[in-house]
Amino acid sequence: MTVTADALSSLHDVLDASAVVSDPDLMASYLHDEAEWAPYGTPLAVVRARSTAEVQALVHWAIEHDTPVVPRGAGTGLSGGANSLAGCVVVSLDRMNAVREIDPLERLAVVEPGVINDDLRKAVAEHGLWYPPDPASSPWSTIGGNVATNAGGMCCVKYGVTRDYIRALEVVTGTGEVVRLGRRTAKGVTGLDLMGLYVGSEGTLGIVTEVTVRLLPLPDPGHTVIGYFDDLAGAGQAVRDVAAQGLTPAALELVDRVSLQAVDDYAHLGIGGEANVVLIGRFDDAGEAGAAGAAAMQKAFSGAGATFTAEAADSEEADAMMAARRLAYPALERLGDVLTEDVCVPKAAVPQMLEQIAAIAARYDTTIANIAHAGDGNLHPLMITERGDEAAKARAQDAFTAIIDAALAAGGTVTGEHGVGLWKRAGMERELGPQVVAMQRAVKAALDPHGILNPGKAI
Amino acid sequence: MTVTADALSSLHDVLDASAVVSDPDLMASYLHDEAEWAPYGTPLAVVRARSTAEVQALVHWAIEHDTPVVPRGAGTGLSGGANSLAGCVVVSLDRMNAVREIDPLERLAVVEPGVINDDLRKAVAEHGLWYPPDPASSPWSTIGGNVATNAGGMCCVKYGVTRDYIRALEVVTGTGEVVRLGRRTAKGVTGLDLMGLYVGSEGTLGIVTEVTVRLLPLPDPGHTVIGYFDDLAGAGQAVRDVAAQGLTPAALELVDRVSLQAVDDYAHLGIGGEANVVLIGRFDDAGEAGAAGAAAMQKAFSGAGATFTAEAADSEEADAMMAARRLAYPALERLGDVLTEDVCVPKAAVPQMLEQIAAIAARYDTTIANIAHAGDGNLHPLMITERGDEAAKARAQDAFTAIIDAALAAGGTVTGEHGVGLWKRAGMERELGPQVVAMQRAVKAALDPHGILNPGKAI
Repeated sequence: MTVTADALSSLHDVLDASAVVSDPDLMASYLHDEAEWAPYGTPLAVVRARSTAEVQALVHWAIEHDTPVVPRGAGTGLSGGANSLAGCVVVSLDRMNAVREIDPLERLAVVEPGVINDDLRKAVAEHGLWYPPDPASSPWSTIGGNVATNAGGMCCVKYGVTRDYIRALEVVTGTGEVVRLGRRTAKGVTGLDLMGLYVGSEGTLGIVTEVTVRLLPLPDPGHTVIGYFDDLAGAGQAVRDVAAQGLTPAALELVDRVSLQAVDDYAHLGIGGEANVVLIGRFDDAGEAGAAGAAAMQKAFSGAGATFTAEAADSEEADAMMAARRLAYPALERLGDVLTEDVCVPKAAVPQMLEQIAAIAARYDTTIANIAHAGDGNLHPLMITERGDEAAKARAQDAFTAIIDAALAAGGTVTGEHGVGLWKRAGMERELGPQVVAMQRAVKAALDPHGILNPGKAI
Repeated sequence: MTVTADALSSLHDVLDASAVVSDPDLMASYLHDEAEWAPYGTPLAVVRARSTAEVQALVHWAIEHDTPVVPRGAGTGLSGGANSLAGCVVVSLDRMNAVREIDPLERLAVVEPGVINDDLRKAVAEHGLWYPPDPASSPWSTIGGNVATNAGGMCCVKYGVTRDYIRALEVVTGTGEVVRLGRRTAKGVTGLDLMGLYVGSEGTLGIVTEVTVRLLPLPDPGHTVIGYFDDLAGAGQAVRDVAAQGLTPAALELVDRVSLQAVDDYAHLGIGGEANVVLIGRFDDAGEAGAAGAAAMQKAFSGAGATFTAEAADSEEADAMMAARRLAYPALERLGDVLTEDVCVPKAAVPQMLEQIAAIAARYDTTIANIAHAGDGNLHPLMITERGDEAAKARAQDAFTAIIDAALAAGGTVTGEHGVGLWKRAGMERELGPQVVAMQRAVKAALDPHGILNPGKAI
């Protein structure tokens, strides 16, 4: 206890008391992200930083005291990347939530890492601009967290992921220096792309204290279409057919019966009817191109065996369709403990992968709900177990591993957008192989020579 | 000589004789890229590799003999990144030029690094697909070279740069291992983004032996418009106004009087008339959106003082307009020795930057032709001197440095798309600062521990 008291006392020497939380009750909400099945430990303290200077002071202190630092945003991660380590300091960036600048001419915004994704979107929309990356967590997750995980979302199928919209970062490095990576200009190739390397590095290379994002003009409200299917295989075939026909939707999402039911119980949207699987697609091309895309998608749905297809009559109906997908995760969480998969497979493999997931659910006697960024081949099978049923949890974890096996066999990746965190470390080693893992560790050691930044995560 | 003879002999032990060039006359065309003003040395040999195995054998040999390896594609680089070092082995990838796979469903292609950019574009166009990155060197430059420099081009203003279209790389690392970085799937966040780090690393981290590129559907032929201006300031203002109005052209290029005259003497296109500066813009949005964009751009041109604006009547006229930009570099090369700048500034700074370039031309008594990816703020002032006039060359180099100063002062970058190579090393240190340069070197040392990969370039 004396060691802990001494360490805490020295932390108070370098940081204002109002920034340091060490009361166990107050620290409780900073112990883990949404991957609560993954291990976590009790931190020495939580630092709720308000400035780059405070983050830098913390890192200098951590180097001196050889103490791990675990950065976190809103804690909506699903892989355990923000889970606390025993004796670490968790640094929460949630107080650094200012939008510092919006530049409509250069189409960029400069924000602090704790800005919530939807808040950024609202702020730039006032200038007719759009920040595309839209993880389902956008009402809660922060830009800093999105950067840490290179978050994806629904619009990725057309617009790409977080990294594609980051121009520059201010970072406190593993040696406690404050550096700027990237640039404000539209292009630039001065030196290695360290900025891109930091995006998706899950807090293992530095702590992001400012983010410069690239923006697009707000797109057309678009055309939203829905298709009902009797089974996953039919929906998977429709996804494949949409890709084969060269269509480029701005979203193509899949929601299965279990998820639809949960959402209906939760939000009473009335989407899905008697369908076992629903696909929701959106085209945002301006003018007749968007309408033509939507019509072609409805035709592709019908061709693959849809029992019903329709285009949303208005934006309210379109929002309800997309909400059926967006609310699936919180709706399913009400049913029990949830373990979230995040494999991504080639589009051609989507039908077979969905069939294999159904087979794995049966084999491991596990309820698996399916939601998916289907147009990307990014599938989120969700293992749901009754709270406290440890045997069911063990079976769910076996199912989780079996899905990873199947995804790798199909030429896929173990994590499409959630990150490696703790859950996918074994999968990462299998996917990348020992040589690439060694390269990753060499880069980590080069940029975090003291090994204090989120150790044991991701890499 | 004995040392050299011994080294050569040992190289022949590990590589087939047909792969090794050591005749000085035959090596002459491998000594430098288009940055011939930059220093270069005589290599021990040139290896024209035909396979990953040959590249790997060379790297193993180079580690054993502590010999630098300088990779090159077509040698169209403009920064000296591919310039030979005394006693090095130049490894040319030009023989590895197979398109291995085109997958229309997944919208990707797998190619060897020596495939020429335009050849890839032609091959995928047969499937209705498009590889966007279009450096002006596209008839000659290779995909491997484009990856090494993270090449840009005309369409970047809307479509981004080479890195945005690379899914996966096969690389021979600095330790002679063959690794695969990236993935075939649309998304993936498994580990640090080493693939992105290798793009633009100018041969300092590894030798790329296979490239998997992401493709888009072929866009609409589009609407091409032209505007004539009396001076650079007016054209710069038009560029700024186009951005301020929220337009997203697929290209927005600038060509000045010197360049127009050179192109007309070279290719007799009849573009530019009596204009001092020409802007060429293109919109490729489908349907009426493209026509509306083109009309809005013509209006913006007129509003900024254009003396003439027009839309191309047909694709032939549109091609002629774009060719006036595309042929500028080879046309100007006929006039003398050319030193190429590549600064990129925020769009708001384009007018002032163009004015400063004119002032620098006067101050250093140097002919400066201007071509620019103006919509990106990526300017290519070209210092042209009479062949053999060393005093003029010295003044041109001073002008080159003065332009870098001005770009940095305007919040710009020293290289928008050509790379650091040899020419921009000093500028890089100024732009990034010592801490980021140290991070770059730490990463380089981690991934090229023997220091054999293109040493002294870029980083």
